[in-house]
Amino acid sequence: MSSILIKNAYIVNMVSPISKADLLIEDNRIVEIGIIEKEADKVIDATGKVVMPGMINAHTHIAMSLFRGYSDDLELMDWLQKVWKIEDLMTPEDVYWLSLLSMIEMVKSGTTTFCDHYFFEEKTAEALTKLKMRGTLSRCIIGDGEAADARLKEAEELYNEWHNRENERIKVCVGAHATYTCPPETIKKSLELAKKLNAPLHIHYLETLDEVNQMKEKYNKSTTEYLEELNTFENHVILAHGVHLNDEDINSLKHIKGGIVHNPISNQKLGSGIANIKKQRENGLTVCLGTDGQGSTNTLDMFEEIKSAAYLQKATYKSATAISAKDVLQMATIDGAKVLGLENEIGSLEVGKKADLIIIDLNKPHLCPVHDIYSTLAYSVNGADVETVIVDGNVLMENRVVLGIDENEIMEKCNDIVKRLF
Amino acid sequence: MSSILIKNAYIVNMVSPISKADLLIEDNRIVEIGIIEKEADKVIDATGKVVMPGMINAHTHIAMSLFRGYSDDLELMDWLQKVWKIEDLMTPEDVYWLSLLSMIEMVKSGTTTFCDHYFFEEKTAEALTKLKMRGTLSRCIIGDGEAADARLKEAEELYNEWHNRENERIKVCVGAHATYTCPPETIKKSLELAKKLNAPLHIHYLETLDEVNQMKEKYNKSTTEYLEELNTFENHVILAHGVHLNDEDINSLKHIKGGIVHNPISNQKLGSGIANIKKQRENGLTVCLGTDGQGSTNTLDMFEEIKSAAYLQKATYKSATAISAKDVLQMATIDGAKVLGLENEIGSLEVGKKADLIIIDLNKPHLCPVHDIYSTLAYSVNGADVETVIVDGNVLMENRVVLGIDENEIMEKCNDIVKRLF
Repeated sequence: MSSILIKNAYIVNMVSPISKADLLIEDNRIVEIGIIEKEADKVIDATGKVVMPGMINAHTHIAMSLFRGYSDDLELMDWLQKVWKIEDLMTPEDVYWLSLLSMIEMVKSGTTTFCDHYFFEEKTAEALTKLKMRGTLSRCIIGDGEAADARLKEAEELYNEWHNRENERIKVCVGAHATYTCPPETIKKSLELAKKLNAPLHIHYLETLDEVNQMKEKYNKSTTEYLEELNTFENHVILAHGVHLNDEDINSLKHIKGGIVHNPISNQKLGSGIANIKKQRENGLTVCLGTDGQGSTNTLDMFEEIKSAAYLQKATYKSATAISAKDVLQMATIDGAKVLGLENEIGSLEVGKKADLIIIDLNKPHLCPVHDIYSTLAYSVNGADVETVIVDGNVLMENRVVLGIDENEIMEKCNDIVKRLF
Repeated sequence: MSSILIKNAYIVNMVSPISKADLLIEDNRIVEIGIIEKEADKVIDATGKVVMPGMINAHTHIAMSLFRGYSDDLELMDWLQKVWKIEDLMTPEDVYWLSLLSMIEMVKSGTTTFCDHYFFEEKTAEALTKLKMRGTLSRCIIGDGEAADARLKEAEELYNEWHNRENERIKVCVGAHATYTCPPETIKKSLELAKKLNAPLHIHYLETLDEVNQMKEKYNKSTTEYLEELNTFENHVILAHGVHLNDEDINSLKHIKGGIVHNPISNQKLGSGIANIKKQRENGLTVCLGTDGQGSTNTLDMFEEIKSAAYLQKATYKSATAISAKDVLQMATIDGAKVLGLENEIGSLEVGKKADLIIIDLNKPHLCPVHDIYSTLAYSVNGADVETVIVDGNVLMENRVVLGIDENEIMEKCNDIVKRLF
């Protein structure tokens, strides 16, 4: 049994008030929080530092690190066409290296869990065996007929091969693309598979006004009605984006298992619209945060999403009180765990939970003074302030160095892929 | 004569296409850009790195570092009352240390010039003699009668004592607070002083809807009409915020000297509204970027403002094409120089201009790959990626270390001020 003792930290556990305390990890779990006078294999002095739950990026496409900065400032259709052309050429090996690149980026900015939606997810799983983050993987199911069936088969194989591997750090769910790209038959089969595997359905949902209009034209239904009629909400759902919900949509989602993943930067940058998060939350929906892929958001820094989510609600409501620092920090941690169905294991710092946490040094000019730790974390800290990252009791990064990984090798591999594909 | 040769950089000069070249500084000026085979006192290898103009934060209140995180998530009037109560207790010495703290923060995130608007500005000037940034200082003139006259006198003394000191790095302009806080007589006197000193007038302008309504009630005029009738726009103006401009306002500003400072994070975070920057720019106004003080924006990282400015226009127009990466980078550099009236000296990298520049290493996981350098700089880089900062030919920061300054001492002094005042 290995143990890590973190001493003298500000414990921002996200479920009770901030305290100054020690935190003890044994193997992969938090076993004690308080004043701890015990020996441990490793002691970390966290005086003047914050310990908080690792962040949960609940909707992303991490192999899209390939497209960082490739098609910015373009209309959505131009963007998609540029990206699709290259995606057709990507190999499984590419996805492995591009996933690793993103995983380093995530660890270095304080994310410990991500929920991915892409293809060649078995290679992202392999990358997860190399850099031991926590990940929920969804093979993207899209289209109809044999093409869709082949993807459904891959999704099931992914589950059978990888679900709960790596000390349960890898989870697999079922990833249908969206209602406007999946005919009813494909959504139905995806739901059947999700039910069979007891896995969440991860789907893009009400991202753009085009989607709203297309669903109306094609089916004379709203996206939510379309999903309801297929009994989608009997299953646990991870609804990515949720930008254009009206009151009826919100009402329909009140008792679902799972929730909405808000992607404020992607939504702004692609011109998709502004999600009414305040209203969604006030109506009892669980809303968490995601970055989307780097094709639209450019980085995977969850602190940027935290800031953007807060700014955007305040701007929309013309009120600084629209949402609080603590609210957006919860969205990035415990609410992400709830949306992924992992709230009994991660998302807060509590005895018995898995040890997924990050350490942030507050002794820096741009963080000084500290009047309110939530404010500091939500509005001043950025990803580069994360000093140490622990996932499942393993130290993945210490003093900004990601352990057991050659960053330069991975960047070189990714640059080689760029040279080959572009 | 001292010289610095920067080798093999991507030169993002902000006025012509990006090139791969060397850049030679002699004393405080850029003397050559191209392939340079010369000796120099100091050679910096910038292979794989970007050299770009130092950023210009054109509206801030840097001694408000005191209030970082102190009154977040509150309505504007609650915010103001909390802040005003403490401001009354601040001493000149406090402003010195709090200014130094902010200047370290600015240097570490790539800002080389700032335009300040506060009180005890002579202490901010002293801080500028310690950490050799470039600053334009405005003593805040507010109210009426003897109180206003005393502030006008201080403003003139500030000019006489400090303008063009420190190798011309310190400039002084005239800072009237706002139209709703300064009666016509005070604005008139401020303008007379600005004219006498040949200095810009730096004033808060159309920040909130409350201001619009108050001006209507009090004077039955718009803010712009009020300023026009006082012949304000015969003078060079630095108009901070510019959130609520209608078509008439924009039309009135078409031929002004100076321009508008957009503060996207502060405007969002205080719920002030969303400025129509696209329209302002399309109508020929010069719009640059500022952070406002840390009481509202929490950090002085101009890369955060760059991102926010871009996101917000795209979200507002529901179009990714609303504004480009290059546009927002120009706003943070050359357009800032124009608004401050310093465009012949700084804001771009051109032979003959003063050597104010920053170096950014692109060889990092979250910046990899680079498809388009403007996209990388606008949407991926954050302040912590700035490696080296040169102002007026002096190296202020090298490899993230601010030279000649004890960061910890300054943070301690500021924490002592917090203990005393709160």
